[in-house]
Amino acid sequence: MTRGKGPLILMNFYSGKSLIQNKVLFYLCSMQLTAGQIAELVGGSVTGDPDVKVSGPSRIEDGKPGTITFLANPKYKDYLYTTQASVVLVQNSFVPEQKLNASLITVDNVYASLALLMARFNSGISLAKGIAASACVDETVTIGEGVSIDEQVIIRPGSAIGNSTRVYGQVFIGDNVRIGSGCTIYPGVKIYHNCVIGDHCTIHANTVIGSDGFGFTPDENGNFVKIPQTGNVVIEDYVEIGSNVVIDRASIGSTLIKRGVKLDNLIQVAHNVTIGENTVIAAQAGIAGSTRIGSGCMIGGQVGIVGHIEVADGVMIQAQSGVASPVKQKGAKLYGSPAIDYQNYLKSYALFRRLPEVNANLNELKSNVGKLLPKDQL
Amino acid sequence: MTRGKGPLILMNFYSGKSLIQNKVLFYLCSMQLTAGQIAELVGGSVTGDPDVKVSGPSRIEDGKPGTITFLANPKYKDYLYTTQASVVLVQNSFVPEQKLNASLITVDNVYASLALLMARFNSGISLAKGIAASACVDETVTIGEGVSIDEQVIIRPGSAIGNSTRVYGQVFIGDNVRIGSGCTIYPGVKIYHNCVIGDHCTIHANTVIGSDGFGFTPDENGNFVKIPQTGNVVIEDYVEIGSNVVIDRASIGSTLIKRGVKLDNLIQVAHNVTIGENTVIAAQAGIAGSTRIGSGCMIGGQVGIVGHIEVADGVMIQAQSGVASPVKQKGAKLYGSPAIDYQNYLKSYALFRRLPEVNANLNELKSNVGKLLPKDQL
Amino acid sequence: MTRGKGPLILMNFYSGKSLIQNKVLFYLCSMQLTAGQIAELVGGSVTGDPDVKVSGPSRIEDGKPGTITFLANPKYKDYLYTTQASVVLVQNSFVPEQKLNASLITVDNVYASLALLMARFNSGISLAKGIAASACVDETVTIGEGVSIDEQVIIRPGSAIGNSTRVYGQVFIGDNVRIGSGCTIYPGVKIYHNCVIGDHCTIHANTVIGSDGFGFTPDENGNFVKIPQTGNVVIEDYVEIGSNVVIDRASIGSTLIKRGVKLDNLIQVAHNVTIGENTVIAAQAGIAGSTRIGSGCMIGGQVGIVGHIEVADGVMIQAQSGVASPVKQKGAKLYGSPAIDYQNYLKSYALFRRLPEVNANLNELKSNVGKLLPKDQL
Repeated sequence: MTRGKGPLILMNFYSGKSLIQNKVLFYLCSMQLTAGQIAELVGGSVTGDPDVKVSGPSRIEDGKPGTITFLANPKYKDYLYTTQASVVLVQNSFVPEQKLNASLITVDNVYASLALLMARFNSGISLAKGIAASACVDETVTIGEGVSIDEQVIIRPGSAIGNSTRVYGQVFIGDNVRIGSGCTIYPGVKIYHNCVIGDHCTIHANTVIGSDGFGFTPDENGNFVKIPQTGNVVIEDYVEIGSNVVIDRASIGSTLIKRGVKLDNLIQVAHNVTIGENTVIAAQAGIAGSTRIGSGCMIGGQVGIVGHIEVADGVMIQAQSGVASPVKQKGAKLYGSPAIDYQNYLKSYALFRRLPEVNANLNELKSNVGKLLPKDQL
Repeated sequence: MTRGKGPLILMNFYSGKSLIQNKVLFYLCSMQLTAGQIAELVGGSVTGDPDVKVSGPSRIEDGKPGTITFLANPKYKDYLYTTQASVVLVQNSFVPEQKLNASLITVDNVYASLALLMARFNSGISLAKGIAASACVDETVTIGEGVSIDEQVIIRPGSAIGNSTRVYGQVFIGDNVRIGSGCTIYPGVKIYHNCVIGDHCTIHANTVIGSDGFGFTPDENGNFVKIPQTGNVVIEDYVEIGSNVVIDRASIGSTLIKRGVKLDNLIQVAHNVTIGENTVIAAQAGIAGSTRIGSGCMIGGQVGIVGHIEVADGVMIQAQSGVASPVKQKGAKLYGSPAIDYQNYLKSYALFRRLPEVNANLNELKSNVGKLLPKDQL
Repeated sequence: MTRGKGPLILMNFYSGKSLIQNKVLFYLCSMQLTAGQIAELVGGSVTGDPDVKVSGPSRIEDGKPGTITFLANPKYKDYLYTTQASVVLVQNSFVPEQKLNASLITVDNVYASLALLMARFNSGISLAKGIAASACVDETVTIGEGVSIDEQVIIRPGSAIGNSTRVYGQVFIGDNVRIGSGCTIYPGVKIYHNCVIGDHCTIHANTVIGSDGFGFTPDENGNFVKIPQTGNVVIEDYVEIGSNVVIDRASIGSTLIKRGVKLDNLIQVAHNVTIGENTVIAAQAGIAGSTRIGSGCMIGGQVGIVGHIEVADGVMIQAQSGVASPVKQKGAKLYGSPAIDYQNYLKSYALFRRLPEVNANLNELKSNVGKLLPKDQL
């Protein structure tokens, strides 16, 4: 996500590059693959021993025998000749300058290959197919093929679960919920009645989908009367949602999370909000009721967005900003509370930091001018 | 909640007005009611066919046959004559200017009637009375009449559940907890031992009541020693709490949420806090330990309030503000971090935005003054 | 935690002093202890009746018969002679000036004794040893001695639970998780596969450990492709974590929470973060990916810290601040968004508040200078 990297802080998504090269620690894994098998998996070529086995990734600085590492950032080039890792992924264009101990696998795109490979190492743990003994699945629920329903799941009447979807333990699925195929619903997720989730969605642990919107109206005595929240939440395909997120149901109609949206942890999405396609939102951001966010937006951590406004496509909002009015300009970059243009905020903030000096300048000038002015003008 | 609407952003509560008229989407529902039945329910009068049936609400711009819509904001008046909805709720004072296709139900208060009606459409889904087979309810627990305890609920020894209260699946109720009558506890809520919840309270999914306050004291080695948190949480009647909220138990005594308080999602209430009657708090706000919030306050989203202070009644705090000192003035309006008077913050922020210009003015003036001053005075 | 108290708001940890003396409310408890038993428990000496019984703590201003209170802050000294409490804890150095009704227990350290005592009053509620009937514990799981596994817990294959650890209801423990001895895992906690938790750790309700880091990379069409998150979370000994916290697993390697760290509620810890020993973090703070926090830091509520930076040991960050760049100076105090030196922020903010006045001064000066300047210079 290189385009977001410069100005946005606290957005803990990132280019694959910055993420991985410098942070790789040794991680044990029970699966073993040979260099040859890996090359086949990622469409690369082996130089060196194709039969050497690895059981997981390591970082190039301290790679251990029996692990695979990679070289993407040339800054780490020298480690290639000293690493103890058994296999190293490198770009096709890379030409070694010295003799290597490790087997080399050359590929078109190191990061893409690495992602593929890590998914393979990570696939060892899976739920059993079928419905676990302690799950409470109502007899009216429709279950697709190849579905896994873990222990202590509750699925209430009228719901439907698509093919190959995995539902982890202690998930609650209310009445008349529809979940598509190829989804993963992690432990403790609670989905209220009538909500709809598309295909290939992932929802992490203890997230709540479809609780009541925060709608109250004061009566003549100052007590608040609840406005019934009769709508639902609709989540389109390929959406991923982090842990402990809350997405409230609409008062009437639907709170709508469009295709490809990615939400980090602990995010608040109020009732009747719409989030456009492929918008990504970092942790602890909050969007108030009935606001419509465009597509391809990038919203930083702890951002707050007021209710009842529209935010155009491709808008980038710096972490901790508070957006208090509609954003009509596509691709606008915002910062501050209330949020203004990103560059203007930085300019103003630079002077905010210098305010004591600016004020001292002013006072000195005033004093100098005082010497020039006749007494009766002061 | 009109009084809160102007100055407060990110408070995703609102007047019923702004919420509903423009955001209503079609929503299917299996229950059917005739215009006559609805008129009886809301105490209104029918003009047109009293036998036409509707199965749910729609919005007036694109109402479909078999739905009911409403006209509250005159801006939408023209749609009344073209809507396909079968029934329209209008004020008693409204006089049609053209012939209508829909049946009209005239009422004293459109919003109140609509709330009543939506609650009716929404009541189709309910838990069975009694204790579900997989629930683990200790034999010492007292259960009132008409109570629903869903699957996989745990209720530990010495607790009591009042009449007609509904406890959804996977809720945990610790030892010696008392829950009043007419409450709804949504899936995954965890209530620690000794906490007390009044009548007619609603707590949404995965909220935690009564976990330990954050209390540690450093020992001579810089390690932190836990201060036992022996108190509890007391929640009075008619309180509604959103999803994934945390309310910590007191160290000694009670964390107290008074009658009629409404809390949105993902809110932090620390140990020994008191929140006064009918105070409403928007999502992701946090209140630090031992602070006392008055009654009738409105606290915006992502607000932080420091510990050990008092906030007077009726105070309004703009979203994202940080309140760092006591607020003695009733009805004060605050903004900023640290928070100051709302209007003063806006005035200062307007100049913050213009700081580059202000500084340029200063520099130009300095240059001009320089021309006036004798060299030896510079 | 006196050292943090001055400058940091919203950090709802505190010195034992400020917490307790003024906030103690009566709290019922079924256990009864005599003054003599308490003196033995805390290593103190009784003056007065050693056989008087108390059933819980109270505050000195309104202590009731049958309760124990304490005097630590001399400000409350006068209450000592009027309190109805049956027993009072005081410092060894304290010499009464009048006759007392209560029995006195003199100790070296009132707060330490009080903590010990409260823990004793609070220990009445405990889980049964063994594995509850409805828990789903895989046959490959290793369970230590004296372990309590409550109802409806799920523990998946290959995991291990250390001696005397208590796992409350509805906890989910994924594949190959290792939990040490003497831990308490409260209801609804979800721990993903391969995570490691040390000895004497406490994790409060509905917290999620080890969900996927927020890692996506855009493809050529602007869709985001998930970067597999193959690492884990490692939590060292004596760590306490609040409710509804999320700690994401590393993409590769480990997200690391070091010994003695204390995390409040609703905190976000992104993938590959390291938090140093004995660092304390208040509620709703968030730390973005791959950042390394030093030891002994104090981080206020709602603080955000950008990804991929290092924060030195002993740094204190004011609530709501946004740290956007590395912090190299040990013990630095920061405030603002982006965060700068704490004192400098306060100075600038004081002038921010006065900006209308500063600007008026500038304009007046400009006007005065205008009078001095020849027309053609304006």
